Formats: sequence, structure tokens, C-alpha cells
Amino acid sequence: MPSHRQMPPGPHPVAFVGAGPGDPGLLTLNALHALQRAEVILHDRLASPAVLALANPDAQLIETGKTGFAPSTPQGDINTLIVAHARRGMRVVRLKSGDPAIFSRLDEEIAACDAAGLPWTILPGITAASAAAAALGQSLTRRDRNSALRLLTGHDVNGFAEQDWVALARPGTVAAIYMGKKTARFLQGRLLMHGADPATPVTVVENASRPGQRIVATALATLPADLDAAALGGPAITMLGLAPRKAVAALPELQKERA
Amino acid sequence: MPSHRQMPPGPHPVAFVGAGPGDPGLLTLNALHALQRAEVILHDRLASPAVLALANPDAQLIETGKTGFAPSTPQGDINTLIVAHARRGMRVVRLKSGDPAIFSRLDEEIAACDAAGLPWTILPGITAASAAAAALGQSLTRRDRNSALRLLTGHDVNGFAEQDWVALARPGTVAAIYMGKKTARFLQGRLLMHGADPATPVTVVENASRPGQRIVATALATLPADLDAAALGGPAITMLGLAPRKAVAALPELQKERA
Repeated sequence: MPSHRQMPPGPHPVAFVGAGPGDPGLLTLNALHALQRAEVILHDRLASPAVLALANPDAQLIETGKTGFAPSTPQGDINTLIVAHARRGMRVVRLKSGDPAIFSRLDEEIAACDAAGLPWTILPGITAASAAAAALGQSLTRRDRNSALRLLTGHDVNGFAEQDWVALARPGTVAAIYMGKKTARFLQGRLLMHGADPATPVTVVENASRPGQRIVATALATLPADLDAAALGGPAITMLGLAPRKAVAALPELQKERA
Repeated sequence: MPSHRQMPPGPHPVAFVGAGPGDPGLLTLNALHALQRAEVILHDRLASPAVLALANPDAQLIETGKTGFAPSTPQGDINTLIVAHARRGMRVVRLKSGDPAIFSRLDEEIAACDAAGLPWTILPGITAASAAAAALGQSLTRRDRNSALRLLTGHDVNGFAEQDWVALARPGTVAAIYMGKKTARFLQGRLLMHGADPATPVTVVENASRPGQRIVATALATLPADLDAAALGGPAITMLGLAPRKAVAALPELQKERA
């Protein structure tokens, strides 16, 4: 291979790849290509088996085990693994659920690459809010209802994440709350305290786009109880201000306008 | 084909398909499949030629011509076209830039299908904010900076869109403003009036993910002038609170923390 000598000797760029919500049909063409060429894939515990099945069968799969509130690989260790494999000349894919730019601690991993002098690239993915909207048959924005959409996290480095509750409590607000399953009671309390209507529709989508997809359609008043009763085990996203389209027709007029 | 007799005689579901930001590599596998099987494709004026090139070559392409502030096909006419082609038994794809659930008037087209008794399905796409973040090398959320991300539209049915300016003006806010090119001066005025720091980083990404991608990195104080000077012609998204990663190192400490 004479051309090999002329190639720069540096490592391959680390690819931060969005895996999307789990349905392999929601992978992008670029993401599929990266998975098929990868030699090392670092993925979260909740990575979709159907997505991993499309990867290069010779790739080394490393589970980093990050899940909300659960024991997980410290971020520093993940950074170290990424850098170590890339330095060995491997094609490294850091596979992230949804979109790498949304609630995935991408900056910290990029900073580690920069510190190590490693090139990197970002391959966007379908974020969970988009998959949940498709599952509900709803738009996330609507003329005359909401000209803004909020993506929030239910918990952050300090525990439950504080938000702009006054704005979130206003009628017509639409927000997608990531990793919000465990914080339903906190969310409900803060929103009601700031004047939200207890009848505000809230829908939780578990395993959006995956075979085990479940939709729990409720209202702010009944969110914690209905979530407890549903006993969701998979990744879930909470959609504030949205009801599934099929159910909308059965709601009273007031709620229908808001949903 | 004996099985044909047992098939329900109804029309094919209308597919609302997210085209992503324009790079055909950012199409999902499902979206590619739908385009390859489509018989009629209704697309916006700014649809990516590279994406349309992947469609069934025998499909009828219909440009609906919707662009911000420009003359365009009235929404009612688009609805009528979708319904008419689906009723004729065609496999109809309604191709929408980015994700169909975000600033695409999806609800109005679904309502038209429901009124006509037509089945439909939504295929999520990569929204422009994700592509812009990848272009900037930035995350849209970051621990200790922002646990919420806002997606806004620069203009709505009433003209310039009013927003929660107090919240948007706060340090650390990150927002992606869709269709905001023409509203830069309005946006700047409202944000400064509500106390935003004139040095807040603002980056406009034109043609995100496409061959003609351009990045205009500026600050709130200089946004309208820098946008005028850049004379952007393609679709653009305005990222409030984010600077491109490469430029971050050259900023003063204060801005670096915010960016």
C-alpha cells in the first residue's frame, strides 16, 4: 500500500455519534457508516441492542454504564478510555443516546480529546423529544400556542434541576423533560406552586421508538401517582403540555385547546 | 397477486418525513426508505437538492415554496394537495426540513389528513439546532451552565415572535432561534432592553451541514451589523449563548465561561 506512507501518521478522529432514541431506523446514514467502521465503541448502558447489532461485528464494545441516579462509570474514567483507545490508533466511536449535543456531557469528553491533542467530530442524532412527538402524533410547536419549545433535564450535577418555573407553569408551555422519571413529584410540586393548572396534560413516553414503547397520558395533578402505577423500567421522557393526539378528541374543550 | 384481494383497500399513510438539515448523510434510514418508495413528494423551497436526489426517480416532486417572509403556497393549498394525492392512492411523502415536529406547521397538515379520514405517520428528523451544535463543536446543554435549552422561532403568525425575554436575557442561557435572520435587530433590541450582556456570544450558522455552510461568530452588540455584512442567502439558525469552540480560547475569561 504505497499510499499509506503519504498518510498523516496521526490518530483517527474520535467520533461522537448520536444513536437516536433506539429504533435503528432512526440512525442517520452517517451514524450507520461510523458504526460499521468503528474498532472501539463506547456506549451507555441503555444503548439500543438493535443499534449495536448494526455495528462492525469485530468492534470492541465497551459499556460505560451511565444511567440517571444509578451507579456508573465516573466521567473521568470514560474520558480516559476514549483518549487511550484513540491514542492506540483505533477508530473510536463514542455512541450517545439521542443527540450528542443534548444532555450527554459532550463538552467534557471533547475537552479531554482537546487536552490530549486528539481530533474529533460530532455526528448529530435524533433527540428523544422528536421521537416522543412522533409517538404522540403531535407537533412540539404550534402557531398560536407555543413559539418556543424547552428541553430540560430532570436532574443535574446538584440533584433535582431548578428551572424557570414561572415560565414553565404558564398555559400553552411545551417542554420535554429528559431523565425526569424520578423527579415527577418534584416537578409537579414546583409547577403547581408557581400556578400551573393541575389539568395541564403531561405525557410520559417510555422506550420512545423501541419495541417496548409505552405512553402514559396523564395530567399534572395525577402525574406522580400514574407514573408509580405504570412502573416504567426503560428510558423515559416527560412531555409537559402535550397529550397524545388520539386522546385529544375525548378531552373537554379547554384541555383540547391546550393539548 | 392473490394476497392483494385481502389487503384493505384504503390509501397509504401520508408520511411526514424529516429531511434533516440538508446533508443527505443526516437522513435517517427510515426517511431514506420513505423517499425511495414515494410516488409524490411535497417539499419546501429550501429542500436540499442532495436529499431530493436520493428519492425515487419516478416520484412526482411538488415544491410548496414555503420560506420565511417570502411569497409561498398558502397552507390550505398544501393541505389540499396532500389530501388529493393520498386519496388517489399515491404514496405521499410530505418532506419537511429538519424535524417535522419543530416549526413546520405539522399539526395543520395532520388535521387535514384526519378531516379527510386519511392515515398518516411521522418520521422524525435531525433538527437544525443539532446540526448547528455539531458545526460549532459545542454542546447545547452543559452541567453548571444550562440545564435547559430553548428552541424559538424568530417570527410567527403575528410577525416577530414575542418570547420570555427576561429569561432569555439571563447569563448562561442557550437558545436556538429558527428563522431568525430577518429578526436579528428585533431580537437584539428585546434582549438588551431586558438586561442581556452586550458581550453575550451569538453565532449564526447558515446552511448547517450543507456544502455552503458558513459560521458568523459575533456578540449580541454586533449581531445585526455582522449579519448585514455577511449577507447570508441560505437558511440560517441563530445560536444565542454559544461561540464556536475554536474561537472560545481567544475570548476573555468572562466570555469563555459563558460560551
